[in-house]
Amino acid sequence: MSDKLLFTPGPLTTSATVKQAMLRDLGSRDLEFMQVVREVRAGLVQVADASPDEYTAVIQQGSGTFGVESVLTTAVPPDGKLLVAANGAYGQRMAQMARVARVPLEVLTFPEEGPVDPQAIARALAADPGITQVAVVHCETTTGLFNPVAEIARVCAAGGPREALPSGGRSEAEPPQRPRQLIVDAMSSFGAVPLPVGALGLDYVVSSANKCIEGVPGFSFAVCKKSALAKTKGWARSLSLDLHAQWRGLEETGQFRFTPPTHALLAFHRALAELAAEGGVEGRAARYRRNREICLAAMRKLGIQEFLAPELQGWIITSFRYPPHPRFDFPRLYETLSARGYVLYPGKVSNADCFRIGHIGRIDAAQTEGMVRAMEEVLREMGVIA
Amino acid sequence: MSDKLLFTPGPLTTSATVKQAMLRDLGSRDLEFMQVVREVRAGLVQVADASPDEYTAVIQQGSGTFGVESVLTTAVPPDGKLLVAANGAYGQRMAQMARVARVPLEVLTFPEEGPVDPQAIARALAADPGITQVAVVHCETTTGLFNPVAEIARVCAAGGPREALPSGGRSEAEPPQRPRQLIVDAMSSFGAVPLPVGALGLDYVVSSANKCIEGVPGFSFAVCKKSALAKTKGWARSLSLDLHAQWRGLEETGQFRFTPPTHALLAFHRALAELAAEGGVEGRAARYRRNREICLAAMRKLGIQEFLAPELQGWIITSFRYPPHPRFDFPRLYETLSARGYVLYPGKVSNADCFRIGHIGRIDAAQTEGMVRAMEEVLREMGVIA
Repeated sequence: MSDKLLFTPGPLTTSATVKQAMLRDLGSRDLEFMQVVREVRAGLVQVADASPDEYTAVIQQGSGTFGVESVLTTAVPPDGKLLVAANGAYGQRMAQMARVARVPLEVLTFPEEGPVDPQAIARALAADPGITQVAVVHCETTTGLFNPVAEIARVCAAGGPREALPSGGRSEAEPPQRPRQLIVDAMSSFGAVPLPVGALGLDYVVSSANKCIEGVPGFSFAVCKKSALAKTKGWARSLSLDLHAQWRGLEETGQFRFTPPTHALLAFHRALAELAAEGGVEGRAARYRRNREICLAAMRKLGIQEFLAPELQGWIITSFRYPPHPRFDFPRLYETLSARGYVLYPGKVSNADCFRIGHIGRIDAAQTEGMVRAMEEVLREMGVIA
Repeated sequence: MSDKLLFTPGPLTTSATVKQAMLRDLGSRDLEFMQVVREVRAGLVQVADASPDEYTAVIQQGSGTFGVESVLTTAVPPDGKLLVAANGAYGQRMAQMARVARVPLEVLTFPEEGPVDPQAIARALAADPGITQVAVVHCETTTGLFNPVAEIARVCAAGGPREALPSGGRSEAEPPQRPRQLIVDAMSSFGAVPLPVGALGLDYVVSSANKCIEGVPGFSFAVCKKSALAKTKGWARSLSLDLHAQWRGLEETGQFRFTPPTHALLAFHRALAELAAEGGVEGRAARYRRNREICLAAMRKLGIQEFLAPELQGWIITSFRYPPHPRFDFPRLYETLSARGYVLYPGKVSNADCFRIGHIGRIDAAQTEGMVRAMEEVLREMGVIA
């Protein structure tokens, strides 16, 4: 029996060899397993294009959301304040995490159809010296948009727009602009969208096992600037989600503090090797971009429009507007395509009826062509196209 | 290649068929996967010997610790107070969770070599009407001891020792003793030690995928009294660990709020079927008890003593004192046995040098005999026995 192909943001279709790596039971204190964990952590720092002297990777049990919450609720000091710049559901989710955990918060909300504006962040930082951390989503999975992380990193490093201050207007008493830390939710982009974490000086970059590295779900990870993480001892608002304690545990014993998902780690170890064999981030990006091109060309031919302007679109997932035809019925399209072995994803845009097609996971050009052919047939049966 | 047998408290040795159930990629919104989740949740309520009208099972991503923290930090109201009764590391860990999450807390600490005393809990409840929840570990994996959950449940239901009050001494102004909720960490016992959750009226019982149900690690679950859980909306201290929101999500959409560990769920679904095929909780308990008997008889013959008095020992894991022989070297014993394919577990008792042998997981009598034979050989090579 062959499983359906998952054109979703995850869990994704993975290779047979990644799944077969789970046919073992290793003890969590076993030397072989500890070696797997070491290699996975080192591999993640490498994928992040960062130096192991300056950066470390911390693995945490749970889904990607657990990982993001772990970073947000550990990185912000007790007297700190978080600025979330949000242009979609995943940015808003970060704000929600901070609210529930009572982390002081400011939110800059941008329309879903456009990027986060780095200059608006600069103004917010200039206006509020109490902000210690900024958080932003790299690929906002709501729409598929890539936010300008490099520019945001420069704004955070500058700590605010010095040039915006009236010239000569600074007094000795005025505090100098200080850098703010940047937390990037790179959930659906890490491993398939080049992001030079070291060169940009990002403080925390979070993703999870079942996205572009093509492992199975079960844990998240954060690539962390050691100098930032080292200061966070005792700041976490939760024992399970204490990123600093998790890091110290991994460093000092080579083990997780609490039972690790050993099988998912074995799968991920294999998945990292398959990423390298595909040519690393660039190689993987090339396959995903090709998947997207095939999908987009076909959808445009079918008259189905993207939600975002073309220049804003990434290559991870595409959000499409429902075609304005009275016979278009998304639940029926979803079910019929699913029965044919192709799983789409519902939309999440708040102000438009959309559905999404993911371009990631162990899916190639021929499989994408199969999906769009099936889509065309179903839309024809439905009477949406002639 | 055959993996080493894991004589540990988990991750455990699982059956080949449980692992093979992971050779699939299902979408998290797929109808087949949603059916798996429904069946797993119903199966857990059944294993708990509880009525589906009164109880529900909520699955959470992460390890067992995440599940316990989720319950503790959701169940205790903002103006409530938690009483933890601890006689080992896992009881103390619950207290630590409450401290980090700033849940008002009182801790009753008992020696590791004895059970939690229900009467001490009764006195604490009588002394402090502010206590709203009591938490206790069922099988304290530190030592292998089973705590008297049934008696503790009666104490919590009574809300305090009415009989201890001076007769006739109650005034109208005195508040009546009210029942307190009981939270049971049944991590290492659930599924292999009969615990009539419904009959005892337990409010929350927590365990995880990779213990006595013999699944793979990746999630925890709580069997919850619906009438208790229903009151907890908005009480959680974390978005990821919000047990109420997770429950409502599962009920209202059939889906997890955040990406589920689909492969671990498929394995667990299979593991529940294998538990039923073995005769349920009683059948599994019988195999584990036989493993323990074989192990104990052999260890006693070798002159290695248990940490606990025999009448206090359970059948999940046994803690053994280091033999007082100058040539005994636990790291060497561990490594040599591990090289022969048998993985032991270090001790965790705070006031004695111990190691542990687990009796759980997909391990049978013949394999246990193989382990103790190897142990005898290694101790002979070491010069500890003649």
